[in-house]
Formats: sequence, C-alpha cells, structure tokens
Amino acid sequence: MDVMHEWMKRISVKYPIVQAPMAGGITTPQLVAAVSNEGALGMIGAGYLNADQTRQIIREVKSLTTNPFGINLFVPEQCVATDEEIRMADKHLRIYREELKIHDLGKFTKPKQAYEEQIRIILEEEVPVCSFTFGLPTESIVKKLKEKDILLIGTATTVKEAQAIEAVGLDIVVAQGSEAGGHRGSFLESPEKSGIGLMSLIPQINDHVTIPVIAAGGIMDKRGLKAATCLGAQGVQMGTAFLTCKESGAHPQHKKAIIQTTEDETVLTSVFSGKYARGVYNHFIQEMSKKKDALLCYPYQNELTKDIRRAAGEQNNPEFMSLWSGQSPRLSKEETVAELIQRMVND
Amino acid sequence: MDVMHEWMKRISVKYPIVQAPMAGGITTPQLVAAVSNEGALGMIGAGYLNADQTRQIIREVKSLTTNPFGINLFVPEQCVATDEEIRMADKHLRIYREELKIHDLGKFTKPKQAYEEQIRIILEEEVPVCSFTFGLPTESIVKKLKEKDILLIGTATTVKEAQAIEAVGLDIVVAQGSEAGGHRGSFLESPEKSGIGLMSLIPQINDHVTIPVIAAGGIMDKRGLKAATCLGAQGVQMGTAFLTCKESGAHPQHKKAIIQTTEDETVLTSVFSGKYARGVYNHFIQEMSKKKDALLCYPYQNELTKDIRRAAGEQNNPEFMSLWSGQSPRLSKEETVAELIQRMVND
Repeated sequence: MDVMHEWMKRISVKYPIVQAPMAGGITTPQLVAAVSNEGALGMIGAGYLNADQTRQIIREVKSLTTNPFGINLFVPEQCVATDEEIRMADKHLRIYREELKIHDLGKFTKPKQAYEEQIRIILEEEVPVCSFTFGLPTESIVKKLKEKDILLIGTATTVKEAQAIEAVGLDIVVAQGSEAGGHRGSFLESPEKSGIGLMSLIPQINDHVTIPVIAAGGIMDKRGLKAATCLGAQGVQMGTAFLTCKESGAHPQHKKAIIQTTEDETVLTSVFSGKYARGVYNHFIQEMSKKKDALLCYPYQNELTKDIRRAAGEQNNPEFMSLWSGQSPRLSKEETVAELIQRMVND
Repeated sequence: MDVMHEWMKRISVKYPIVQAPMAGGITTPQLVAAVSNEGALGMIGAGYLNADQTRQIIREVKSLTTNPFGINLFVPEQCVATDEEIRMADKHLRIYREELKIHDLGKFTKPKQAYEEQIRIILEEEVPVCSFTFGLPTESIVKKLKEKDILLIGTATTVKEAQAIEAVGLDIVVAQGSEAGGHRGSFLESPEKSGIGLMSLIPQINDHVTIPVIAAGGIMDKRGLKAATCLGAQGVQMGTAFLTCKESGAHPQHKKAIIQTTEDETVLTSVFSGKYARGVYNHFIQEMSKKKDALLCYPYQNELTKDIRRAAGEQNNPEFMSLWSGQSPRLSKEETVAELIQRMVND
C-alpha cells in the first residue's frame, strides 16, 4: 500500500480507505476520530442531524484527532405528503406500536432537513472533506466550499450520475455498487435501474469520468481493496466493516445481526425511511412489504417509523430495527478500528 | 498471466478464461472452437438442445479444434402446468403474435428436456469438461462422468449453493454474481435472495469451499480478470464479452442492442422463459411484466414464447427478443475471439 494518489496527498491521508458516513448514530466522534488517527479518512454521517448537533459532532471529532476527517450531507429532495396520506401511512404502523407497547405517540412533526445550515457550519468549521448523497449541491454551494479548499465527494450508482457529479465540479466520485449496505445513493435513476455490481460499475464509471473513483459496496478486507484498485478505483469506502467495530455507535443488536447473518439474507427495502436501502431481512420488512402502497416518501416515512425503531432499540428487539448491511456479512468481525485498518494495509 | 492453476493443467488450457455456455444458438461450433483454439475454454450451451443436436454440435466442435472444450447442461426441475394454465398464459401472448403477424401457431408440445440422453452422449463422446446450471447432477451421474475423467463444474449464486456443489463432488464452482447476463443459476434460493455482487460473492464463496472458484458476471476485460483473481478466483467465465464476437451465433440485433445499451438498462425478468434472467429492457419485458401472474414455470413459459422470439428474429425486431446481457455493456466490443482473448492476457 505505497500508492499515494493526488487526492490523498491533498488532504494528507495515509491510506486510500474511507469510512462510510453512516447516519443515525453509528459514526460516533470516537469512530470517526479513530479512523482518521489510524491514517484512513473518518466521515461523520450527518444526514439526520440538525444544525446544533452537526456543529457539536464536528467539534467533538476535532477534539479527538488532528488528522483530516469529513462529513456527509443528504441533499434535500422534493417529498410531499398530504395530512390524509400521513394518517393512512401512520395507521399501518399502529399494530407494531401496540406490539412494542409504545404508548406516548408524540406529535408527528413535519420533518425538516438542516442542509443549508449544515453547509454554513461546514464552511465555518472548515471541515476538510464534504460528501453528498441523494443528489448534487448547487454550483454556488460548490463554489463556496471550494473557496475553503474543502475536498468534495459525490455518490453515484450509475455512469450518468458520476458524469453529473464531475460536471458540477466535485473532486471525487464514490461508485456505490449494488453490494452496498444502507441507503442507495441513486438520484437520477430509480433504485431498480441502478443496482449495478461493482465488478461492472467501477470500470464503466472510470472510463467515463476524469476525477478519481472510490469504490463502495461489499468491500471488507484487503482482497476487496486490491480488486477495486485493479478495476480502476483510487480507494475504497467501507461501511459494514466499520459498523461492527468497537468504536462504532451501532446498536449491539445491529452488530450482532450482521456478524450472524449470511450474504443471502440482506434485501433492498424502503419500508423504514421511504428510500431504498439494503439491510438484514427481519419481521418489520416482511410485514411492511405487504403494505407498499401506504409508504410515504423520504423523509416522511423515516419520521413516521422513528418511534418504532427507537422503541425496538430500547427493547433490544432487532425485528423492528433497520439493520443496514452490505452483501458481505460473512466477512465482518468484531474488532477495533486499528485492527481493521492494519489488516487492510499489511501484507 | 503466467499462473497455471491445477484445473488448467489437468485439461491443458492455457488461460484461466472460460467462455460462458450461452444456450439458444449463440455458442456455435465456430465460437466454441475459436475460444479453445486461442487457449481459453470454449463451452457449448446445450440447455435447449435435443439428443441429436447435442451429439452433432460436439462432433462439429471436435472437427474444428483438438484443444479441450466443454458443454453445459440444464439440470431438469419440477415444473407442472395444467392445460387451463397453459391456455391462460398463451392467451396473454396472442396480442404479440398478432403484432408480429404470426399466423401458423403450431401445436403446443409439452417441453421435454434431453438431460439423461445428453449425459450418455457426453460419456460416449468423452467431452473434456461438463458444467451444470439450475441444479446438481446426482451422485451416480457424477461417478460415471468422473470415471471418464471429465472435469465437472457447477454454478452457484450463494455460498450454500457452492457448498452443495462441492459436496456432490464437482471439481470447480462458477460463482455467478448479480452482474451476470442470461439466466440466474440459483437452485437453492430464489433469485431475489441470490443477487449477490461479485465483490461480495467471490471472497465469501472462496472462504467456504476448497474447490477452485471461477468468477462470472460483468467481466469483460483484463481489469475484471485481475480483480476476480484478487478476490480469490482461479479464473473467469465471460458471456456477454464473447456474445458480441464475430464468431458468436447471437442475432445481429442482439449484438447491436448490447453494443448500444448502458449499464442501467438491463433488468432481471422471467417473462421469456419462466426463469429469471438478465437482459436489455425492451417492449416485451415492459408489457409482460404487467402480467406476471400468468407466467408459467420453466420450461413451459420458454416453449410458449418460442414462436414470438423466432418471429422477432426473422423480422429483425429486438423489441420481442430475449436480449441477454450482463451489467457491463459499455465494455462490449465487436471483435474476433482472438482479439478479445489477446487483450485479456497481454499487458
């Protein structure tokens, strides 16, 4: 692992390994800082955070590492739901609330994304790296971030999306293969049309853009890093492999589900958030897949299922959690970030 | 490409490249022999052939090459359809027959697979390599083939399938990733559970079997061969890359569709044959996907759509053909087998 690509030199990162920015409490300051301290690139998953939480986690990471780190934002999308649609979607979830004995339903508040405020905070805090999922930043945002010399990364699931990422001026494209766990980053095409395996996706994207490609999906060890490199990638982004690390904030039941499952037990589902994502098959997916017509778009569906996922976590019940995982769970280990990175880079 | 794996030595093949056994007239004797003559392994796709056709094509290949070659069989499965179900499924196809002006409908004959006779012929002709798709040969068949020193290959889409292939005594497992074109080889799991990308599938299978793994799916050039090797494969099986070669018997419209399409335009569909397969999206897939309840199982559905596919071929109408393709069509070229193999192995 002696190769030093230009993008690595620019931000002074030792290894071509990016820790995937997993939202929802997984990327604790401890995880992000541990990754960066070991010479890879730690990334905050800030998709679900509000402005205050965003600033706070950036500062916490800064207090734990002097090495470069990054942050990922969800680009907001059009999603409209009428009160009647929300009521109907909510009705389908009542049976699970009863099952989980959730009494205080709280008040449904229309979800609000803090994207614009997050951009402002990233500029103020001068976070070294900023990546985007579910879409593209505007040219004016790209311009402002570039003025601060922030390295910009986009997420693509097809060649067309990669070309759009290059066209808007981002520095790197993450090629997200169908193997990847968590949310599909597709923004120009439907997830059904964009489930391209990395063996196909990396070379085809690499042939059609000039910016560096970082491969994401199913990569868990040195074999994957080397294979991605052979296909033309200048690095890898790994989610599931970091999720089961000791420093990650994933729920113990989530880590356990990944460690114990097999490659044929993950599915793409939109029942948790309204957006397709890959996770370990469980009771909630099974039941809700029968009620697909009642699902709202993101972030409404995500907001509606929040109390169910929270209660499931408190009750240690994995059957109602979103157990995001890529297609290589048999390669997962319970280890420290240092152990994972060392076995990625040592021969 | 100086590596000589044991399986290569055993059958005296120069390169770790297998031409995928594509059924339906694509693997002409000219294609198979050209591949073998160039030092890779040519394979006859015999899944749809009767006994006479099977013997004839084996002899034709033998007349064109003295190098080793192989043959692939479809392991027969349980598929029952009542006369009423056949009548209903047939009714949904009438509109397309009218569109294609198919007047002579012929008589629907219950499809019959020549599997047992094909095994007998392979033993008699001493074909050097025999591979299986859609299931496992019985132990008694394995024993007979091994007595003739025939190299035996199974097709797996999950770790469990690979383990079953090793357990029954086959010599090699082809790991078919979700990127692969044509029929899914899944036989223990549904295709929805077994669409695992090669980046995940190769290392996980390799960790759980002791027999060599050959990777299939989306591999079109040297980058794919090297990547598959990094992941633990001892060779690659390529379909789409050979399909567009000059020597292949694929319909010119099929070759053209692959050359002109993009990675996001292939889909998994069972509308042509009753079994899931990956091909370029077209009118027939779009229309028939609305009528999924009326599809019969394989080989009934395949038999029912035969006249439609044949007429589409005669009329040069790709909208009603089964345009099988993997997920890397942007990497396809119109070239000779020699040109393809040379660019795979030369630095």
